[in-house]
Amino acid sequence: MIRTGDTICAPATASGGAIAVVRISGPESLVIAGKIFVPGGKKTGITAVAGNTILFGEIIEGPEVIDEVLVSVFRAPHSYTGEDSVEISCHGSSFIQKRILELFIRNGARPAKPGEFTQRAFLNGKMDLSQAEAVADLVKASGEASHRLAMNQMRGGFSAEILKLRDELLHFASLIELELDFGEEDVEFADRTELKKIVGKVSSVSGTLADSFLIGNAIKTGIPVAIVGKPNSGKSTLLNTLLLEEKAIVSEIPGTTRDVIEDTLIIKGIEYRFIDTAGLRETNDIIENLGIKKTREKIIQASVILLIDELNDEPDSINHRADNIREIIRGSGKKLILVINKSDTGTVSDAEELRAKIRLDDGESVIFISAREKTGIDELRDLLAAVVESDKLFNESVIITNIRHYEALIKVSDSLRRVMDGLDSGIPDDLIAIDIRQAIHYLGEITGEITTDEILGNIFRNFCIGK
Amino acid sequence: MIRTGDTICAPATASGGAIAVVRISGPESLVIAGKIFVPGGKKTGITAVAGNTILFGEIIEGPEVIDEVLVSVFRAPHSYTGEDSVEISCHGSSFIQKRILELFIRNGARPAKPGEFTQRAFLNGKMDLSQAEAVADLVKASGEASHRLAMNQMRGGFSAEILKLRDELLHFASLIELELDFGEEDVEFADRTELKKIVGKVSSVSGTLADSFLIGNAIKTGIPVAIVGKPNSGKSTLLNTLLLEEKAIVSEIPGTTRDVIEDTLIIKGIEYRFIDTAGLRETNDIIENLGIKKTREKIIQASVILLIDELNDEPDSINHRADNIREIIRGSGKKLILVINKSDTGTVSDAEELRAKIRLDDGESVIFISAREKTGIDELRDLLAAVVESDKLFNESVIITNIRHYEALIKVSDSLRRVMDGLDSGIPDDLIAIDIRQAIHYLGEITGEITTDEILGNIFRNFCIGK
Repeated sequence: MIRTGDTICAPATASGGAIAVVRISGPESLVIAGKIFVPGGKKTGITAVAGNTILFGEIIEGPEVIDEVLVSVFRAPHSYTGEDSVEISCHGSSFIQKRILELFIRNGARPAKPGEFTQRAFLNGKMDLSQAEAVADLVKASGEASHRLAMNQMRGGFSAEILKLRDELLHFASLIELELDFGEEDVEFADRTELKKIVGKVSSVSGTLADSFLIGNAIKTGIPVAIVGKPNSGKSTLLNTLLLEEKAIVSEIPGTTRDVIEDTLIIKGIEYRFIDTAGLRETNDIIENLGIKKTREKIIQASVILLIDELNDEPDSINHRADNIREIIRGSGKKLILVINKSDTGTVSDAEELRAKIRLDDGESVIFISAREKTGIDELRDLLAAVVESDKLFNESVIITNIRHYEALIKVSDSLRRVMDGLDSGIPDDLIAIDIRQAIHYLGEITGEITTDEILGNIFRNFCIGK
Repeated sequence: MIRTGDTICAPATASGGAIAVVRISGPESLVIAGKIFVPGGKKTGITAVAGNTILFGEIIEGPEVIDEVLVSVFRAPHSYTGEDSVEISCHGSSFIQKRILELFIRNGARPAKPGEFTQRAFLNGKMDLSQAEAVADLVKASGEASHRLAMNQMRGGFSAEILKLRDELLHFASLIELELDFGEEDVEFADRTELKKIVGKVSSVSGTLADSFLIGNAIKTGIPVAIVGKPNSGKSTLLNTLLLEEKAIVSEIPGTTRDVIEDTLIIKGIEYRFIDTAGLRETNDIIENLGIKKTREKIIQASVILLIDELNDEPDSINHRADNIREIIRGSGKKLILVINKSDTGTVSDAEELRAKIRLDDGESVIFISAREKTGIDELRDLLAAVVESDKLFNESVIITNIRHYEALIKVSDSLRRVMDGLDSGIPDDLIAIDIRQAIHYLGEITGEITTDEILGNIFRNFCIGK
């Protein structure tokens, strides 16, 4: 079913390249585009050609030629939105982009709202809601891992998982409801043990998915890393060394750039984000003691803490500082890496001697580096990468990255817990059925089987215009 | 004739929009793109479809899906470059753009050099050299006037003019050379009066074209405007008022922006560029006297000078300051506008009284404004617009904007002056023929009939990558 409404237009690419694209979608799009376009050569116009065809010609306004362009014609349902639509590739000037949009509008289109093209794709059944959300994530993804998660979600990997859970619950619900229909007769169509097994399984899968949000969100937004340590231990030198290496590593194909975000690092496709480096970046380390409020806040925000000490420090002080941090992070799943800097001021045996005296908890590491001499930096990068790779959920096929999905899954779990309790305590079937229906409802919200204008509004408001 | 070489690739759009485009061009482009693209639906691949066709499918790297994309297939000679080429519309992420380019390169393409697509279009006869140069100007044009000039040049308006001149000279040269062939017999095929008429006409047209460079270049790069005046006359307030109005005027279609360049103003499609406003922008006007070196430099750089005085100033001082400026700009064609600020501190009759006492030269204007109260600003904008509109060359159909063309036209004029002198003084035909051939050569350099690798290198080096 194709829902048709008005015809919308927007820039589809940023301007500033060799070419720029504007798009128009909706029932009148071919007619409107046809009015401002004069085809060259064979003279077949936009409204006359088959879908998926490219025409060369001119955009005109009265006698004036605005640009020579390529026009891509799409016919419903074979387009991104599922509607008739046209994309115009013009020269990459924002002036020309704007003139073409003005012409579209003057001929009956209206400017698209943020995300409206994708919203139409959703409403026309071209993708479900979680796939639509992945489109926005995909465009933002700057590392390989976040790109992979968004791509998997866009291609329906996550939706398939949710639909499977929903189907199992629907089957369960239908059995319970069948019993309700025969309520007077006190029959039992569903084996209670079997029912519990289904609920237990669905509950466990949705719980695991919800748990994956922690790592999924960290991958999407960057793993937060805190660099802490006493003054002059070399924190700022280490940060600069890491970031300078990053700049050198980013392989450059001319004309493409990764948006260089200050204080982020990509290791093995995963982005790491250093927290609150303002203090570190000052030429002179500011006086900073472990245990003061600011450092504590940094540690609380971080997933990985790099504690910087020096080769010449007393082992006792190092252990003491590490203990202070352990106290803050206990039970949180945060990872501590002890970084012994200035390894160039001593010998290998100095290092080994110190290593023997440093206490480590399970999952912690100690590493010897010289930030100034740039030794040990690759090993530190490997350790940072291992933090994510060792996460038990990292290699799961489906990881969720979206807080809306996370919140829906938590509600699913809550409903299923009530179902389970109900089955255990033998409460009436009709109450159990309500909780089951609720779980099904929340699963449906994720993929958009169930939706409201408010949910749609919240989701697409965060898209760019033209998407 | 299609020259084939290696296959080149580059990003074609900026990243950051909903979609981004990468392009590949050259003999292997369909094969290379076909290796990394799996078509959806009907399963007809890139190498099998007709030109000007769009395919939907996936870019893959081994088992991994990099993106779902649209692929536009072009077959020689029906493409921008005249070669086989492919454009891939992917999601608008620089990460994805880069991955696709990496795949192109791994499969045998190489990164394109700046302007290389357009250079190939020129070499394959899709456009002449001045049209190719207009492509770069078109992308940069931010005002209606500069856009119109670039568009006219790209569509061959200027080339047609040059070719007409060249044809007339070629005809002339052939007559002279015919006489040389019959040199011994002392025949005269060409009527000398007729010859002089032709040379005079070509010389006059090329001279007018060369003259149009002044206004053409100003339109292309923005009309330079200097704001001068004594301290505290309100120069910075006026500048801010003009620029704030500009921000409010720029009509915004959501998602499109004019690249806001600090200190430029667009009036009736023409860009005005304020010179050296650093001093003006400080909160306290810096002490600045007319006649000091800095102000003089500003005036010399400007095409329009706004002299700011106050309603309460002595008429004599105003006239004196204006005279100082007139002395600098005499004979230069620069325009002086006297701006009497702080009109809110007096009555209408105060203004009329002052106006009567201000001396104006031909073409000068005086205007009363209040920068603080924002009165008179629209009239000032009209006066600025009139400066350009009154230029006798502004409404000519062909205006040149390119310094390379200007220099070639000057050389054409020089050669033709020697021809004219030769005809007058009766020097031998073979010497006249040399000068004629030289003028023809320089005209050919403009459109690219005559070209060298050095000229091409200089031109395309200034293009972006992907153009």
